[in-house]
Amino acid sequence: MDERVREHAEVLVDWSARVEAGDDVVVSVGPDAHELAVAVAEKLGERGANLCTTYSSGEIERAYLRAHDEEFDDGADHELALFENADVYLSLGGARNTSATADVPSETRQAQRRARQDVREARFDTRWVSTVHPTRSLAQQANMSYEEYQEFAYDAISRDWESLADEMGNLKELLDEGEEVRLVSSGTDLTMRIDDRTAVNSAASVAYDSHNLPSGEVFTAPYATDGTVTFDVPMTLNGETVRDVRLEFSDGEVVDHAAEQGADVVDEILETDDGASRLGELGIGMNRGIDRYTDNILFDEKMGDTVHLAVGRAYDACLPVGESGNESAVHVDMITDVSEDSRLEIDGEVVQRNGLFRWENGFSE
Amino acid sequence: MDERVREHAEVLVDWSARVEAGDDVVVSVGPDAHELAVAVAEKLGERGANLCTTYSSGEIERAYLRAHDEEFDDGADHELALFENADVYLSLGGARNTSATADVPSETRQAQRRARQDVREARFDTRWVSTVHPTRSLAQQANMSYEEYQEFAYDAISRDWESLADEMGNLKELLDEGEEVRLVSSGTDLTMRIDDRTAVNSAASVAYDSHNLPSGEVFTAPYATDGTVTFDVPMTLNGETVRDVRLEFSDGEVVDHAAEQGADVVDEILETDDGASRLGELGIGMNRGIDRYTDNILFDEKMGDTVHLAVGRAYDACLPVGESGNESAVHVDMITDVSEDSRLEIDGEVVQRNGLFRWENGFSE
Repeated sequence: MDERVREHAEVLVDWSARVEAGDDVVVSVGPDAHELAVAVAEKLGERGANLCTTYSSGEIERAYLRAHDEEFDDGADHELALFENADVYLSLGGARNTSATADVPSETRQAQRRARQDVREARFDTRWVSTVHPTRSLAQQANMSYEEYQEFAYDAISRDWESLADEMGNLKELLDEGEEVRLVSSGTDLTMRIDDRTAVNSAASVAYDSHNLPSGEVFTAPYATDGTVTFDVPMTLNGETVRDVRLEFSDGEVVDHAAEQGADVVDEILETDDGASRLGELGIGMNRGIDRYTDNILFDEKMGDTVHLAVGRAYDACLPVGESGNESAVHVDMITDVSEDSRLEIDGEVVQRNGLFRWENGFSE
Repeated sequence: MDERVREHAEVLVDWSARVEAGDDVVVSVGPDAHELAVAVAEKLGERGANLCTTYSSGEIERAYLRAHDEEFDDGADHELALFENADVYLSLGGARNTSATADVPSETRQAQRRARQDVREARFDTRWVSTVHPTRSLAQQANMSYEEYQEFAYDAISRDWESLADEMGNLKELLDEGEEVRLVSSGTDLTMRIDDRTAVNSAASVAYDSHNLPSGEVFTAPYATDGTVTFDVPMTLNGETVRDVRLEFSDGEVVDHAAEQGADVVDEILETDDGASRLGELGIGMNRGIDRYTDNILFDEKMGDTVHLAVGRAYDACLPVGESGNESAVHVDMITDVSEDSRLEIDGEVVQRNGLFRWENGFSE
């Protein structure tokens, strides 16, 4: 076995999920994530955790959903019970075809999503972590060879997380103390309120309220957004390429929008519900192991020198206890490059210019 | 998809497990059983059942068990809860390597087995069915090409189960009414008591207390065995080939034994515990779709023209309600060919001679 697979498993089990003896762990395995699952099982055996392995296949999901009449009862008590009794949930993504569910009607998907809300919530109540095994299908989606993609993915995953967490702590502190953020870049001049909000230092560990591996971003839940933003990093949304999306906000709400490509998909997303035209997240990518766009949001949104905003649902972790932020059935991240002609200000003070943070060498006010 | 895979799924879901709308179904998928899992998911979608898919990989099990210190706590509450809340459990075997766990110490395996007794019982409390997807590894174990093995397997699985169930009902009736069975064949003359015992018409359906697909055997739980039996169908037990095992019984217990090959494995099995040297099962194979030995007990024991006996644990379904039969940690089936120079008698009446049953053309008293 490739030593990098073992290292990935070790980071996931120890740093990310903080697995301990006696933990009841659910490991979800994608069809091409088998090798990572073997390495994770070894680590879980060493730690003395209890392992239950589930199988997550787009092809199985597609066959099931297309055959279903869409009358989902509130059942799945067995799956609910599984997660209600689990301490840890590790999702090892590894599709053979990232478009495997492309011809499932979105109504069916949404109907099942509604019926399984309780299962999803039970899963989020565990120490859950999502990661992916670098597969050929992900390499293809990234327009990369398999070997090249493996190197890319392991660079992103095998960070010195402890020291990145320390560095990201600087930004979290500034965001927690700040009241207003302003982002200025080519095609972008946007202000957002963040007072009372708590930033998450997303250091790829449940100990930091962070549930992705790789991670490496600091995010919060902004509101009262005003101005214009242009997302110049392309991405696939609902199966379509979307490029150069421009959103204009007034008093927190999108009042105008356009896109060079994929405008219809953006329309669709913004029209989902009321919350879909308000921001749910402002995130600052700080993982410099991720140096290129690979059309996979797990990696893209953490890329160094980028900032992303999501329309839709806000994360509870960013909100005052008991308060609910922007609510929506969607949470769609879009990304903008801030490596040039850009600055991020908090309460009028520049904290990042052209990708460099104020605590870094070469930063200029 | 091969139409035979769809048919396999349909038999499994409808005939075997009797799945209905709203059933909470756990489907366990072997690494090479993916295609069958897709077909099963389609059927479950059509029926409106709820699907939770688990992944059963020998390689994952091996990595986990070899890394474990053998101190299994009684945990795995999450897996227990999954099965306690399930209506149906479908196991789709499909290993890539049927020897994947060969180097797991048997003590570790046994320690885990003991710790997971409750999970196993919860699984047996569902409408459970075990089947296999015909894989290359099973073809190899059977000494067959892949295509040849597929044909073999689907012949065994795609029976007219309704009419086989009717036919097997004849034998069940004779066994239920009978008091003593005598089996005479080359190297075999054995008598067993069966009064008070109930035979299972194992017609590959939970509606018949039958949990294997394929099935096609009638079995009961004999006792007070006397005489000698020779098992001339070879098989792999605990990783070793075992051939021409001879057991001599007196008053229910093995008093002498020998084997042409693999005698040490037979020793080991018989010495497991007290119950391991008494019979737990007498089974008569009646699936004529299975016409050859493939070193897979799921198929071999149902082969037409064979009789098998198991040392070890008896099935509750064969015993008077509330009574416990032979108890043991093992249940090891061994098979004898009865196509020639053989007869099976119940209370002195010949019911099968040289493979032919008394209700068949050509049968001679």
